[in-house]
Amino acid sequence: MKFFNNEDTKIFALGGLGEIGKNMYCVMHNNEIIIIDAGVTFPQGDLIGIDYVIPDFTFLKQNESKIKALFITHGHEDHIGGIPFLLQSVNIPAIYVPNQAIGLIRKKLNERNIQYKNLFVYTEKDKVKFKNMEVEFFKTTHSIPDSHGIAINTPNGTIVATGDFKFDFTPVGPMANLHKMATLGNKGVSLLLSDSTNALNEGMSMSESRVDEALGEIFKSHDGRIIVATFASNIYRVKHIIDTCRRNGRKIAIFGRSMETNIEISIESGYIKNNDLFVTPSEANRLPDNKICLLCTGSQGEPLAALSRISNGTHRQIQLKDDDVVVFSSSAIPGNAVSISRTINKLYLKGVKVYTNTLLSDIHTSGHGKAEELKLMIRLMKPGYFMPVHGEYRMLKTHADLAIECDVPKENTFILSNGEILSLYKGKVTKNGIVQASDVYVDGNRIGDISNAVMKDRQVMATDGIVVVIANVDTSKNILLSNPNITTRGFVLVNYNFELLKELEEISKKAIISKLKDRINYAEVKQEIIGQLAPYIYDKTGRKPIILPVIMNIKETK
Amino acid sequence: MKFFNNEDTKIFALGGLGEIGKNMYCVMHNNEIIIIDAGVTFPQGDLIGIDYVIPDFTFLKQNESKIKALFITHGHEDHIGGIPFLLQSVNIPAIYVPNQAIGLIRKKLNERNIQYKNLFVYTEKDKVKFKNMEVEFFKTTHSIPDSHGIAINTPNGTIVATGDFKFDFTPVGPMANLHKMATLGNKGVSLLLSDSTNALNEGMSMSESRVDEALGEIFKSHDGRIIVATFASNIYRVKHIIDTCRRNGRKIAIFGRSMETNIEISIESGYIKNNDLFVTPSEANRLPDNKICLLCTGSQGEPLAALSRISNGTHRQIQLKDDDVVVFSSSAIPGNAVSISRTINKLYLKGVKVYTNTLLSDIHTSGHGKAEELKLMIRLMKPGYFMPVHGEYRMLKTHADLAIECDVPKENTFILSNGEILSLYKGKVTKNGIVQASDVYVDGNRIGDISNAVMKDRQVMATDGIVVVIANVDTSKNILLSNPNITTRGFVLVNYNFELLKELEEISKKAIISKLKDRINYAEVKQEIIGQLAPYIYDKTGRKPIILPVIMNIKETK
Repeated sequence: MKFFNNEDTKIFALGGLGEIGKNMYCVMHNNEIIIIDAGVTFPQGDLIGIDYVIPDFTFLKQNESKIKALFITHGHEDHIGGIPFLLQSVNIPAIYVPNQAIGLIRKKLNERNIQYKNLFVYTEKDKVKFKNMEVEFFKTTHSIPDSHGIAINTPNGTIVATGDFKFDFTPVGPMANLHKMATLGNKGVSLLLSDSTNALNEGMSMSESRVDEALGEIFKSHDGRIIVATFASNIYRVKHIIDTCRRNGRKIAIFGRSMETNIEISIESGYIKNNDLFVTPSEANRLPDNKICLLCTGSQGEPLAALSRISNGTHRQIQLKDDDVVVFSSSAIPGNAVSISRTINKLYLKGVKVYTNTLLSDIHTSGHGKAEELKLMIRLMKPGYFMPVHGEYRMLKTHADLAIECDVPKENTFILSNGEILSLYKGKVTKNGIVQASDVYVDGNRIGDISNAVMKDRQVMATDGIVVVIANVDTSKNILLSNPNITTRGFVLVNYNFELLKELEEISKKAIISKLKDRINYAEVKQEIIGQLAPYIYDKTGRKPIILPVIMNIKETK
Repeated sequence: MKFFNNEDTKIFALGGLGEIGKNMYCVMHNNEIIIIDAGVTFPQGDLIGIDYVIPDFTFLKQNESKIKALFITHGHEDHIGGIPFLLQSVNIPAIYVPNQAIGLIRKKLNERNIQYKNLFVYTEKDKVKFKNMEVEFFKTTHSIPDSHGIAINTPNGTIVATGDFKFDFTPVGPMANLHKMATLGNKGVSLLLSDSTNALNEGMSMSESRVDEALGEIFKSHDGRIIVATFASNIYRVKHIIDTCRRNGRKIAIFGRSMETNIEISIESGYIKNNDLFVTPSEANRLPDNKICLLCTGSQGEPLAALSRISNGTHRQIQLKDDDVVVFSSSAIPGNAVSISRTINKLYLKGVKVYTNTLLSDIHTSGHGKAEELKLMIRLMKPGYFMPVHGEYRMLKTHADLAIECDVPKENTFILSNGEILSLYKGKVTKNGIVQASDVYVDGNRIGDISNAVMKDRQVMATDGIVVVIANVDTSKNILLSNPNITTRGFVLVNYNFELLKELEEISKKAIISKLKDRINYAEVKQEIIGQLAPYIYDKTGRKPIILPVIMNIKETK
């Protein structure tokens, strides 16, 4: 394919650099923009109350007419979770997705009542052509079926984005297409964007087949019920568990909405062939213990997930028994250690046997390649330039070092931040400019109406609560109409602190009266209240709540 | 020593069971109570805004006259942090502490202006006698100098509490007193309370001497500045680092208040012999890079600690340089993974080399024994009964299993919760009764005035903010004096949501007017406001903030 070339091709991330989450990579040539993935991040740490973090779509809004298509590498939330928000913000002419992802995306759009007609399934055989660019695909192995890498042929050279991948020479699903990767590498890859998640881990990740064996061993050695928690989207793992149940004469009951959804979609799309083993929870309760497996969500200790409710004893259908066995076929996502511990402790307390991957490493393997696998990808692609993606900064840095070990010149590696632009021109890559790419918070159903100020207020209220001071003032006579009302939430136990609250009332009263002048200045009165109360409260309680004075002018409002 | 024996000896924990933190174990015989340790827990997860969790002292208050003494096993916060709060609540006739702990405790009491005269240092040679009981000590190895186990001889038999321990046959400090342990075991131990922290980990923990070697290797192979972060209280580690600096011709600058305090106290108490290597930060900045080591706090990514500020570039005295090396001689406490990652990423971003114990395991070892060490303690003590302490439930359970492997009969192991009482009578132990032992929250300088309701409010405000609705009503005329005032914090970005807020005002107005009757019922009006606003807000925003209606009666208050 020949293109008319009079300018550079631009490559930048709107998400995915310096973080694990909200992957979104853009390739722009002249008046065409191709987007790869549209993910969300589930917030951690101090972003309390935020449901998702999504990429900043400002650049895409400003260049809406140029957008040609969105390509999805695979159906994980950090690659597809942002689609509903993206579609609410900009017009996307077409979305190309692998087979397994389409059901997940449709479900997601339905839940938000978004009508969208231009969802197309691609396979490895397809090529998608635009005026200046052509997109092709290669099959990879990951912890969800139908993961693909994407190659974009541009007038300036070929750009490859691996998507999430590992190499598994004895996979449970189909083999990754090593030969197509080799062919792409031979034809020449100008720039490789590659998954950095496990760059810090040496060696090679364990094969999914080994997990199969380890699960089989647990199934063989226990006669009680077996309860397995795993990532709902890890369909290969779910497939193992089903196969293991079949071999061991156990039926399966499913718990947790995301588990139900993923299995349903996998049956529809053919990844799970037989559903003859599935039984309802009440059927499960009637079967002998050695004839049943409970497959559930909650491997991260999520408080409302099935396993958490089972471990709490608050699950409507399942009560734990002494000889139950619980298998966490999963790893801990950083930040979830405390909630996972809590669940495990509750399970121990009920007297059941618990297997986790820290006690028995073979019951889980990561979907992301470790150092040796990352090197294999680099060797296959032989890229001229290298841009590690999908990782925190230390992972990107370590991945760049791996590329240098594999003969990519140091000056040809680019560790970027979201928004930083690479320019590819006639096979040469340089850093050139920046687009807006901040974090956008989604809380409830509203995009981006949470600012840092709102987050800061939440943080303070979470830590020390709020003290509301309400004063009714008659400005015509310059008098305070009544004692200020002090109301608190999350501050102190009100019943035991009447004296303290009475003090706050007195201090507020004096502060207001001292500022009642010819012409009352509301801001000044509020400032005075805060200025008087804050040090007093800190002295008495060691706390720094939000102090919220509200001055109401009764004459004015009558 | 002979005792007059007409009743049982009671043993219970006020903290330390089902948790790592706030250790406090009580032994009571007739009218004498001996307390072992008085720790705090640093809250995790959803206990936002709480500074400490401390044991519930209710039982001790009710039995204040019986308390004879508090014995401290070692100077870690989860063993001494509760002392100031305990002394504020009850009278403790004497506190016996090991040498290293006394400086830390004095400092703690001074900071809170607590005068306390009866602090006594004990050594392994001492015995402390009471009417019915006698207390003796044996030296153990742990990550702070001067850790001891405690044996209490009672009329009903001997109770041993190990305190925190590991076995290290090539320790940096003195050897643990294996022979005294063996002697105690030979004389007969009725009940053993033993540290369960690392019960889930197989094998034996690495020797502190190996850490010494590993640090030495890092020092030898780098010419840039070396920045080491470790636990401030781990004086052995600090001692290594000082020795390693001496061997490699480097001076040391100290950063972080707790590091300064611990080093100061260790110099006073003789654990650190030489302070000739210490230099000030400005002297450090004038020395060549290969002549300086910066020793700092912040190994857990604590936002205000020295290392965090250095990695942020906000430290007043230290700017990172390209060839700096940062060593985390520490492990991640669960729950800190996200903040530690954040610090490490920032360090990578500045281009410095980072060593952590996940990348190079020999730069840290735990202070708590693993399974084989726990078994050695059980074998030495040969206890009749076994009560695992100092651990989450799964650790206690696994530790009890280890005791069973070491010939303690299963029915003689007791996995208890805080407050559950063991009764020891003539060498036999049974479970018998319970004392109050809930978690008590300390926020700021106030003990126990944070209830679950206050915590719940904080949680909701943290997640979705607060909407305050203020209505001025004239009850004499049954009229609403003005439109209700709507003020929010942590809810939405006010500037972009005037319409929404106007709607909330209208709905509140209607709700209030609908309830203005002959005799206004405040509770009913408030309920109506909440009932009308909550579903509307949820529908419009997907959020569930606290709705706080305040009704003010203007006539009444004039």
